[in-house]
Amino acid sequence: MTLLDENRLLPHDPAGRSIARRLYDSVKDTPIISPHGHVEPAWFATNECFSNPTALFITPDHYIVRMLVSQGITLDQLDIPRKDDTGNTEQADPRAVWRIFAAHYHCFRATPSRMWLDHVFETLFGLDEVLSTDNADAYYDQIAACLSQDAFRPRALFDQFNIEVIATTESPLDPLESHQVIAASDWNGRVITTYRPDAIINPHASGVNDGSFAAAIEALGELSGLPATTWDGYLGAHRDRRAYFRSFGATATDHGHPTAYSTVLDQATAAALFDKALQSKISADEAETFRGHMLVEMARMSCDDGMVMQLHAGSHRNHAQQIFDDFGADKGFDIPMRTDYVNGLKPLLNEMGHNPAFKMILFTLDETTLSRELAPLAGAYPALLLGPAWWFYDSPDGMRRYRELTTETAGFYNTAGFNDDTRAFCSIPARHDVSRRVDCAYLADLVMRGRLGEDEAAIVAHDLAYGLAKKAYKL
Amino acid sequence: MTLLDENRLLPHDPAGRSIARRLYDSVKDTPIISPHGHVEPAWFATNECFSNPTALFITPDHYIVRMLVSQGITLDQLDIPRKDDTGNTEQADPRAVWRIFAAHYHCFRATPSRMWLDHVFETLFGLDEVLSTDNADAYYDQIAACLSQDAFRPRALFDQFNIEVIATTESPLDPLESHQVIAASDWNGRVITTYRPDAIINPHASGVNDGSFAAAIEALGELSGLPATTWDGYLGAHRDRRAYFRSFGATATDHGHPTAYSTVLDQATAAALFDKALQSKISADEAETFRGHMLVEMARMSCDDGMVMQLHAGSHRNHAQQIFDDFGADKGFDIPMRTDYVNGLKPLLNEMGHNPAFKMILFTLDETTLSRELAPLAGAYPALLLGPAWWFYDSPDGMRRYRELTTETAGFYNTAGFNDDTRAFCSIPARHDVSRRVDCAYLADLVMRGRLGEDEAAIVAHDLAYGLAKKAYKL
Amino acid sequence: MTLLDENRLLPHDPAGRSIARRLYDSVKDTPIISPHGHVEPAWFATNECFSNPTALFITPDHYIVRMLVSQGITLDQLDIPRKDDTGNTEQADPRAVWRIFAAHYHCFRATPSRMWLDHVFETLFGLDEVLSTDNADAYYDQIAACLSQDAFRPRALFDQFNIEVIATTESPLDPLESHQVIAASDWNGRVITTYRPDAIINPHASGVNDGSFAAAIEALGELSGLPATTWDGYLGAHRDRRAYFRSFGATATDHGHPTAYSTVLDQATAAALFDKALQSKISADEAETFRGHMLVEMARMSCDDGMVMQLHAGSHRNHAQQIFDDFGADKGFDIPMRTDYVNGLKPLLNEMGHNPAFKMILFTLDETTLSRELAPLAGAYPALLLGPAWWFYDSPDGMRRYRELTTETAGFYNTAGFNDDTRAFCSIPARHDVSRRVDCAYLADLVMRGRLGEDEAAIVAHDLAYGLAKKAYKL
Repeated sequence: MTLLDENRLLPHDPAGRSIARRLYDSVKDTPIISPHGHVEPAWFATNECFSNPTALFITPDHYIVRMLVSQGITLDQLDIPRKDDTGNTEQADPRAVWRIFAAHYHCFRATPSRMWLDHVFETLFGLDEVLSTDNADAYYDQIAACLSQDAFRPRALFDQFNIEVIATTESPLDPLESHQVIAASDWNGRVITTYRPDAIINPHASGVNDGSFAAAIEALGELSGLPATTWDGYLGAHRDRRAYFRSFGATATDHGHPTAYSTVLDQATAAALFDKALQSKISADEAETFRGHMLVEMARMSCDDGMVMQLHAGSHRNHAQQIFDDFGADKGFDIPMRTDYVNGLKPLLNEMGHNPAFKMILFTLDETTLSRELAPLAGAYPALLLGPAWWFYDSPDGMRRYRELTTETAGFYNTAGFNDDTRAFCSIPARHDVSRRVDCAYLADLVMRGRLGEDEAAIVAHDLAYGLAKKAYKL
Repeated sequence: MTLLDENRLLPHDPAGRSIARRLYDSVKDTPIISPHGHVEPAWFATNECFSNPTALFITPDHYIVRMLVSQGITLDQLDIPRKDDTGNTEQADPRAVWRIFAAHYHCFRATPSRMWLDHVFETLFGLDEVLSTDNADAYYDQIAACLSQDAFRPRALFDQFNIEVIATTESPLDPLESHQVIAASDWNGRVITTYRPDAIINPHASGVNDGSFAAAIEALGELSGLPATTWDGYLGAHRDRRAYFRSFGATATDHGHPTAYSTVLDQATAAALFDKALQSKISADEAETFRGHMLVEMARMSCDDGMVMQLHAGSHRNHAQQIFDDFGADKGFDIPMRTDYVNGLKPLLNEMGHNPAFKMILFTLDETTLSRELAPLAGAYPALLLGPAWWFYDSPDGMRRYRELTTETAGFYNTAGFNDDTRAFCSIPARHDVSRRVDCAYLADLVMRGRLGEDEAAIVAHDLAYGLAKKAYKL
Repeated sequence: MTLLDENRLLPHDPAGRSIARRLYDSVKDTPIISPHGHVEPAWFATNECFSNPTALFITPDHYIVRMLVSQGITLDQLDIPRKDDTGNTEQADPRAVWRIFAAHYHCFRATPSRMWLDHVFETLFGLDEVLSTDNADAYYDQIAACLSQDAFRPRALFDQFNIEVIATTESPLDPLESHQVIAASDWNGRVITTYRPDAIINPHASGVNDGSFAAAIEALGELSGLPATTWDGYLGAHRDRRAYFRSFGATATDHGHPTAYSTVLDQATAAALFDKALQSKISADEAETFRGHMLVEMARMSCDDGMVMQLHAGSHRNHAQQIFDDFGADKGFDIPMRTDYVNGLKPLLNEMGHNPAFKMILFTLDETTLSRELAPLAGAYPALLLGPAWWFYDSPDGMRRYRELTTETAGFYNTAGFNDDTRAFCSIPARHDVSRRVDCAYLADLVMRGRLGEDEAAIVAHDLAYGLAKKAYKL
């Protein structure tokens, strides 16, 4: 018995399948470039064993959590800690949570979570029966037994996964202690950081004017030793922290903004908004203006220091107020919304869209923008690259639509390759494998339809699996 | 000769087709659950013969009418009665209208109307040549001859169609006389009603402040015996009519709103808007606010009485003013428009999105919301379910896209199964058959691509055809 | 060796492919109706040889230029003249530009440009190796050698391409001298013009109030001999120029508006806006209002003179300000944006949507409007037809999606056939060939899925390739 079809995600018809299979075979063992993601650097710093199957697969993964919640399971039932939790961990029962998960495994049918879970269960833990209530405990025991072995420690898995380089994502307020430990260790794994300054750029990161922005800027001042509460000091502190991040391998910055809005303010106006933000007196509209201007400031710094800029726009964060109030952010209630890149990015692009020193990788949660806005923009502006299908679209059909909606306008060579963008470390090989299979299926279709020679398709397959990401992120 | 390919809508390739065929064979004879639609309960109450082919197939079906109108045929030519008609029926010539229809049958090529018309023509009336000017009269005569037979009376067709339960849709102002007759009869067919309160919720249901809202509320007061012109009396009358509808089997309410906007007003503010509406002094913006608040009030009542709430949003009603002025509503000029569910529903969901007593089924005419908004929302909020592809999307390609755009994020088990939503009684088996075929084709594709075992696909096929609708609508 | 697969763009599977092949074989040699495009009438008037490969394929084609620019090539490197250029042509080096193009040919993989370039290279110039740096000079020499031959002069190619009729597009300010020459010549090729009045309708055609609108209206007055600076004279001058264009075969007008907004103003209000525009005092909002009203005036004239009205909406023109300032319009930086047809066109449609004398063909750059807005509108209003997939969507996948998103609602017979809309004369046969192949693949899929008999599919294939365009444009 087996969970995995060796030809999964390849075309049905024999002729298409054999082309896709040849293309896939030529890239399936290519090393993994993971230039954007959210695994914990501490795992590689300490190299401790993962604690249990539930903590590895369920609790930290908002895709899994949200599906269970949608079926009426509460976050409390899943042992997700409440904000005010002074420690319910002693009450936690990871096996009970695992059983809930197993009892709802049918809900994941045809989702990408199911796809990579099965991949991990079979390839990593030797499990080959579909997870269910009946085998929940056997699954739990088998995984738990593996996790206690050295071969399943983070660094061993990193090597086994054939990862050439992985980027984590940190706040400028992070001292990067884990990255320091990794750098000082004798381990050769390449784990780099990424500069993600949302917490010190978004005056309403917490949703309201509650003083958390001022606290963040104060912390920034302390870390950088610069007068970060003045506008010039604040910009200087950004430059300082960007340099510090680069010393731990960072080649990119990442920006999670509600919209793609950008604007060019004069320095006095920007400084005044910054002061208002520090005083917790900034309105929602002003906060948007400030973020829009800071996008431009970040782009200016990228022109100077060469860091590639990533923009992840269009998520309505923390849609369920009560969940946010009780449990905090990232609990599965971030919902995509319509996003306008054409008007939003125009001021920024008018300033540096043709600057050869500038590169910006765009991501979207509004799939309608792919063919209407993003492929036309990336197919014209030299500064722009399209990031891969993101979040809910990081799925076989989402990836296929991404290619169909962008390639005819922007081609392949204005795209930035794949990134897994995951907190689920074990899913990384599965995610890259899905991406490679879907791309090879798409390429085989082009070959079958006489749109591309198989020799050229093979070159493209390798570029999509490896070359483009390496080039886009300067790795 | 035959109009119907027995493998229609199944995949091309032999391997995919044989899997799809096995899945389809396992569900094709499953009883029909029709939880949302617009057939006339009077048909089952009186059980009279349908009058003629034109009255059965053309006049009441806005899909058919609009296509003919798009080709330059006028509503007058189709014997559609004008609002001020004191009776042009004596002039009506159903055979002449049928000939117009036949002469334009080529315009329906590749439309879902063509698909179910052919299905009905062949399976119900034994016709197996494509309708055309040449055979228009033969068609008409053959259908007319059948309709006069007992086997073609509504109740006989209901049984022949293998309908387990069908829901009609009525206004709170409807005394449900036909439902009373059915209940009192010795016929066992399960025909239930649905509470559709738009006429007493939308102050601008007629498009303007013309007093029709006040008249509706007055009628509501008379029917319920409650002081419906006061805010509290009005809410009480809703509760009263909902209970009355439940006594005729209703398990659901249905709400046709221009947008998905919701808002939570305090009771005094809501009451003041209600008064303005009664006095025909409410502005368009205020009417939207009132509807948004009433959506919340209806949701509150659903939490109390357990009725499942359906929201059909996003139709620009009566786009052609002159057609509306001359002929009234529902003449084929309702046009979809962009709809925002993420911000629109947030107030409602923040109040009862996690209430275990509440279920809301969402429908959309803005297909872009499926992957961007509705699947992410339904894949997180326990209260939400996705309704099937609706209206213009109730078509083979529309249904396929619905699965491709929702399944990867929300899975199958946050969806509500199929509903035919039709006024065309004879099309019901054809519509459910199309849905089952399209779903089995989608499932076979998943199996072929190694995303789902065929054993699991068979379970899902049955759930999509039967189980999910039954559960979602509490039938 | 060959660049072209004879079954390109047809389905993979043998059964689907053979149906598609039969359909395609029945239409592949049908004469070309090219009712909308941008080739230079001067080519057919003078019949001079095309100057060189770069001037024929690269410089005038914004699809090619933009892709090269996206890779960091500057417009200067491509010898695109600057606005203030007093003549850098002596510096121009077309062979050097060609080499740049060849070195980036891989960037066009899977784009429609690649598809029609390969088609032209092989069928017209006998080249059958993929263009690359290695063969760039050989390519250049071979094409240049051909272009100097009589068989490659514009009229000879026109005949070879089997063009039955081609429409060019001119401004009302164009005296149509080339069309006069063609009409006076003994050549029988049917080259007609199209009335494209944007320059005299859009007060902000240049992006700002710079007096260019007043200059255009003054020129209009001179050409027409009518007092065009008065509102009545202005409308009269439109009528006069429309009649003049009709005398050179024009059957259609074409309108490139930023949005689909229409509005019905009273004549005094419209006249006042016109005066403001003449005085360079019109605001952006007022300019939109004026354009919206002029759309209605143009529709009124169409009701009178029978010219078919084309609306191309939704392009954000000249997104890159510096490129526009330095090089002018049409340099590849027109980016699609969201467009609302439902509310936008309502005023116009309420006035003449049911007028049998009126026909309007709609184009979109916002693909999401196809199923949500345009198919529902065209499937109801007798005045409306859907134009083919436009611009970035004039591509195999774009065309397929166009059919999938429109046919089920509007059918085939509310569409206007294909138009190539190109400045690249040599690409015309390739573009029509792509369209015919994609349509036959779509039709074969319908046949395979039992949705249409092959006999009916063959009729539709011919209508899509020929009949519908001829009828829609009254040719």
